[in-house]
Formats: sequence, C-alpha cells, structure tokens
Amino acid sequence: MESVEDLSLGPCTASQYLRPFRLRYRQNGISKIWDFMRSHDSVSILIFNTSRQCFVVVKQFRPAVYMCEMERKCPQNFERKKQETWNPLPNSLPASVGVTYELCAGIVDKPELSLEEIACREILEECGYEVPLATLKRITSYRSGVGVTGSKQTLFYAEVTDEMKASEGGGQPEEGELIEVVEIPLKDSMDFAYNESFPKTMGVIFSFMWFQTNVAPNLLEN
Amino acid sequence: MESVEDLSLGPCTASQYLRPFRLRYRQNGISKIWDFMRSHDSVSILIFNTSRQCFVVVKQFRPAVYMCEMERKCPQNFERKKQETWNPLPNSLPASVGVTYELCAGIVDKPELSLEEIACREILEECGYEVPLATLKRITSYRSGVGVTGSKQTLFYAEVTDEMKASEGGGQPEEGELIEVVEIPLKDSMDFAYNESFPKTMGVIFSFMWFQTNVAPNLLEN
Repeated sequence: MESVEDLSLGPCTASQYLRPFRLRYRQNGISKIWDFMRSHDSVSILIFNTSRQCFVVVKQFRPAVYMCEMERKCPQNFERKKQETWNPLPNSLPASVGVTYELCAGIVDKPELSLEEIACREILEECGYEVPLATLKRITSYRSGVGVTGSKQTLFYAEVTDEMKASEGGGQPEEGELIEVVEIPLKDSMDFAYNESFPKTMGVIFSFMWFQTNVAPNLLEN
Repeated sequence: MESVEDLSLGPCTASQYLRPFRLRYRQNGISKIWDFMRSHDSVSILIFNTSRQCFVVVKQFRPAVYMCEMERKCPQNFERKKQETWNPLPNSLPASVGVTYELCAGIVDKPELSLEEIACREILEECGYEVPLATLKRITSYRSGVGVTGSKQTLFYAEVTDEMKASEGGGQPEEGELIEVVEIPLKDSMDFAYNESFPKTMGVIFSFMWFQTNVAPNLLEN
C-alpha cells in the first residue's frame, strides 16, 4: 500500500491552488465580512460496469484528509506560532488514514469543453474506459463547501462494459497523480457505502443509493 | 427576500476562518507538495416533523456561493493583480443566486461535547426544536472537500413533532447568522431534491433519498 514519509508542515503564503479572498458586504442593512476561497467547479461520475456488475471508483492518498487526522492526534503542530516555519512532522500515522474512496472526478478548468466532455476525459484518464459522450446521463448538480468555496458539482452516470476498456487508468503520473482504480461489486455496494471504516466521500454513498433506486430495478427486469 | 449591497472584494492575508498550510512529503518515493486548509469537522441533521409530515431545512445567503456566480459573470474582478487592494464589485447579481438550501448543521469546535450534543444544540439554535439526545439516529459519516480540507462530516436523523418546538430558530443573529427555517412537505421532497433551480447541498439530496429508502416504508406501515 501507500508509503508516506518525511512529512514537513509549512506556511502557505501564496498558492496557485488556494485563492483566498475577503468579501465586505451589507446584508439586509448589516455590514459583514466573509472569507472564502475560489475554486473550480467540478464533475464526478458514477461508473457502473455491466459486464462485471460492479461500480468503478478511485482510491487515493489525500494529504488534506491525512492532515485532518494528524491534527486530531498532534494538534500542537498546527498552532499559529508554528505556521511561519517548516516543521518536520512525526511519521506516526499510517498513510492509510489519508486514503479515501471517491467517484471518478475532475475540475472544470477548460472553458472550451462541455461538462460532459470533461467527464468523459476523466473517465478515460482515471479509470481507462472510453465512454461515448451521448451515453452519459446527468444525475443532478449541487453546491459543495458552501461555507468556503461554494463551487458547483455536477454528477453524471456512465455505464461501461469490459469492451470499452482502453487503458489502465490511474490518472496522470506526470502530474503526480497516483490513483488506484477499485471495483466494488454491486451486491456488496450498500454494505460498503455505509461501512464507515472505508473513508469515502458523500458522492460515493449518494450515487450508490441513487443507483439502487433508479437503475437497479431495471437491471432486474432485463 | 435578502438584500445584498455595497460589495467589495479584497485580499485575505490572515484569517481566523481559513488556515492554509503547505505539506511537503514523499509518497512511494516521490517528493510532493500539497496546499490544504484545516477546518473543523461538522455535523448535519436531517429533521423530519411527523406532525406536519415535512422536512425541516435551512436556507441562507452564502457569500462563497454568490462569489462563485460573480466570478462566472465578472471574472476580471478575481484576477491576481487585483487581489492586493479592495475593489468595489458591481451590484449586478441578485442575492438569490447565493441562497442555498441546506441541512441544519454546525461545526465541531467544543471538545467537551459529543457529536450528538452538538447536533441537538444546532437543531435548537437553527430550527427551534428541543430534541432528546437519545432519539438522534446516526446515519453515517464521510469526508468532505477531500482536495482542500478533508474534514469529517457526520450525518444524523432527528424526528420532531410540533410539541417539541421551543423557539423560532434562525441561528444566532448576534453572530451575524441570518437563517431561514423552511419546511419541505414529504410529498414534494423528491421533486425538490432533483430540481436544480433550488440550489442545495448534496446532504439535502442524499438524506431525502435515504429517508425514502429507510424511513418512509415504515411510515406507510404505521
């Protein structure tokens, strides 16, 4: 499994990923201030492989999740006075506490592409399936991180077969992505969804349940 | 409805709400850097009023959501060079584009309280119902914002009756909270959940669907 070593925590004074802003405004006559971050909208895709009757999800080490557990265990490393220098962190937590199961997903950062086109590219890049654009089904959209980013996420459903498999997937190693493709058998999927010992996003739980209600009944009929 | 005026966008050089960090680490032998933010874990609660057969959710103006739409319309306001001064923003978007429907929720910032105790306080504060601790049902937990914060959210279910109503709710106005309590009739709830013209969090959609599968069948039996 993953190995994570030589951790060091430091200041983040300028970031191309985190873009903090402060908004001053007057709401119903009351002056207010709100700190927020701009982040890209995103798409995520529930992928179901009909040949194998399984969901295809991704699994990866998430530094933010790992550090969440690190703060729980060693809060002193996150104190304000320590934020101005680089501090080595103890190697006291296994990498597995930062590994999460997620839907295949990607950010919307190419204005020339539709959400569907971005979704299809992510499916190929991360999971290795060539999905025809027209077969993608839009499930719904919603707001995420309403306190901090408020960005819009759009959720799609894609059915794939083994014949559509074009590559191994795994993301773009040259961009540092280390993504593991994981198959969750349909018959185990609801147990998996509610088993809290597998850290996951709400997208996984919601979309598995959506499938049970909206797709599974038709599978049984056919 | 909400009025939002005199918007001005400025730099956020230090914030008590956004705590950015940079992590250096080695994953499977490869050196990496990841920028993330620490944020509190949180609880959210699906509230169902059995007297009125409706869900009780909250609705509020979310600056981050509003600014997401502002950037879509006026991206020039968010350019890097403009981040060092305060820039007045056009009053060109109605406040309603930043108003979202959400589950009653709160952050976990009191180590002396259990998640259930925090959930009960939020229900009272935001929605005005006195819920006995022992009647709260834990649905599940999951990770949110895995790229940026990775914090853990725990979702509960609470059944309430009109007799439990102790106050109007609405949050803590002295902390600037302007929360509107909204009732969504059970019979309209799935239409509401999938109607994208009502901006909402995934928590609302997921928990309404969870209710349909896990609670509604028992309601019909009784």
